[in-house]
Amino acid sequence: MNEYRYWRLNSRPLGHDYSSALSLESGDLPSVGDGQVLVRADYLSMDAGVRVWMSAREDSYSPPIPLGTPMQGQFLGPVMESRAAAFKPGDMVRGFGHWATHSLVDPVQSGLTLLDPSVRDIRDHFGPLGLNGWTAYCGLIDVLGLKGGETVLVSAAAGATGSIACQIARNMGCRVVAIAGSDEKCAWLTGTLGADIAINYKKQKVGDELAKIKGGIDVYFENVGGELLDAVFPNMAHYGRIGICGLIAGYTSSHGLPGPARFDQILMKRLTVKGIFLPDFLARGVNYYAPLKKWYDENKLAGDFDEIRGMNHVLLAFERLMRGQNQGKVLVDVRGSSY
Amino acid sequence: MNEYRYWRLNSRPLGHDYSSALSLESGDLPSVGDGQVLVRADYLSMDAGVRVWMSAREDSYSPPIPLGTPMQGQFLGPVMESRAAAFKPGDMVRGFGHWATHSLVDPVQSGLTLLDPSVRDIRDHFGPLGLNGWTAYCGLIDVLGLKGGETVLVSAAAGATGSIACQIARNMGCRVVAIAGSDEKCAWLTGTLGADIAINYKKQKVGDELAKIKGGIDVYFENVGGELLDAVFPNMAHYGRIGICGLIAGYTSSHGLPGPARFDQILMKRLTVKGIFLPDFLARGVNYYAPLKKWYDENKLAGDFDEIRGMNHVLLAFERLMRGQNQGKVLVDVRGSSY
Repeated sequence: MNEYRYWRLNSRPLGHDYSSALSLESGDLPSVGDGQVLVRADYLSMDAGVRVWMSAREDSYSPPIPLGTPMQGQFLGPVMESRAAAFKPGDMVRGFGHWATHSLVDPVQSGLTLLDPSVRDIRDHFGPLGLNGWTAYCGLIDVLGLKGGETVLVSAAAGATGSIACQIARNMGCRVVAIAGSDEKCAWLTGTLGADIAINYKKQKVGDELAKIKGGIDVYFENVGGELLDAVFPNMAHYGRIGICGLIAGYTSSHGLPGPARFDQILMKRLTVKGIFLPDFLARGVNYYAPLKKWYDENKLAGDFDEIRGMNHVLLAFERLMRGQNQGKVLVDVRGSSY
Repeated sequence: MNEYRYWRLNSRPLGHDYSSALSLESGDLPSVGDGQVLVRADYLSMDAGVRVWMSAREDSYSPPIPLGTPMQGQFLGPVMESRAAAFKPGDMVRGFGHWATHSLVDPVQSGLTLLDPSVRDIRDHFGPLGLNGWTAYCGLIDVLGLKGGETVLVSAAAGATGSIACQIARNMGCRVVAIAGSDEKCAWLTGTLGADIAINYKKQKVGDELAKIKGGIDVYFENVGGELLDAVFPNMAHYGRIGICGLIAGYTSSHGLPGPARFDQILMKRLTVKGIFLPDFLARGVNYYAPLKKWYDENKLAGDFDEIRGMNHVLLAFERLMRGQNQGKVLVDVRGSSY
């Protein structure tokens, strides 16, 4: 089997029209060069951040993905062939490569990581124990300095990162306020994940609900941006901290969204607003994995999956994510799909 | 002379129409109660922050000034009568009281401070050595962690606080970029205050000028807000810090300004944005005064004054400040004016 399949980025997508911008291609598997590793994907991770690199924006944390090349993203699966000392065929690994059945990678550049075999569901290496979990931990602990007893607000709380942020905050003894887009998600957040309050932003006025919270919001873990920020800013506690992990509301707009009109609250309440970007902290990964794994083993950290099967459904999975229709981690099971 | 004069706030001003909202009143001097101090003002300080408390906004760092009461602000002058142990008649003091010829104050609540007699111009207790200087020092050093060699951008750079911020940054060995609203101010900033680059925002496109600065802006000391932020955000360096000291562009608007559309740069560049509010740090005042005074004595810290004479011209002075027509500290000399 020397053929593989991949999604190629042909143009910069407009809004959620991904099928006009990407196409499913096939090609011959490349040969493995010195120091390289060829990995077969069992699962592909769908991550909102890549939407930014799909566009032509030069002001992002990563450069635009060149047109005509494979779409970039995380994979998880077995090593097929290795010419790097640290990996051998059959090793289960995670890394950053392509939306493809196979990725040929440089282990360092791709962040290729050998997976802990004691994890009971291998897919959890993408959610609670993967970069979503690491991002939530890094953001809350290292960037925002979360302390037990604080009131924490999480947006896109039913998403892959938000759902872990809620559980970390709960595990640390914080009061957790979660914002999500359906009653089902809200019930999952309060029922299973232990959030104290869940707000359905499609039914409730977020600002009014937040105004009822005595003492205000100490820490806001922001994944959304846009109008939501204007509901949150006036309800922050004095000296509160806001971590901008994602601004998904603006990713599909070519001109961005209006800025938060209540930006003045940064001065009036002496807030701190910071960006959260895991790659800056990857060297601290062990410090994130260990406490997450401990909670995971104690059944205090649960993922949920929004899983779709088949390489041909990658764009559908990605669109579900970008439209916020998912509950938990969006991934694509590509096992046996076309190779 | 038992009469004094004061400006009374009668209604919430609209825009810059201060004369419809305030009136000059006279009354009998109150008697000095236990623990109180009566101070005669030689000078009144005009500060943009009080514009916020003039309005009915409940979300500011201070509550609205009650209608029908004297307008609040800083004074400087001799103690006339004291029933507090730390002060005696003739002491030259600075404190927070009223836009009035006399203020009767509680020394603690008003932050009454005995003035260092070694300062060569007593008015400098309002500018470089006063709360403007302290705010600039606190903001750059304690809030923003300024280090020598960084590139520092200051808006409203010819103002009382901005002009000190420029000089502190220069004294620390930073590259200083100053934004002001006239060629005269720009010449003062580069000629006298040692800024490396001055941008006249009324003539030049700030974003274009900032884009020429190699390496981007490490630290932005923001006094203005509004459109300026959108010119600055994309030109910040990665991991840059922004201190919001003032948002004067929005103070006269009853509905605030649009938020910064390039808010996403906080995430993309992993910026830190914080409020700067001196009263939170007043206990550290000695740590601000000592280095400022050292530079002052070495002629490395100069103030400039935009001075008007007479109690009846207070509103004119305030409007000059709010319209950004001043160069340096705006103050009113009220000596001998009506008492």
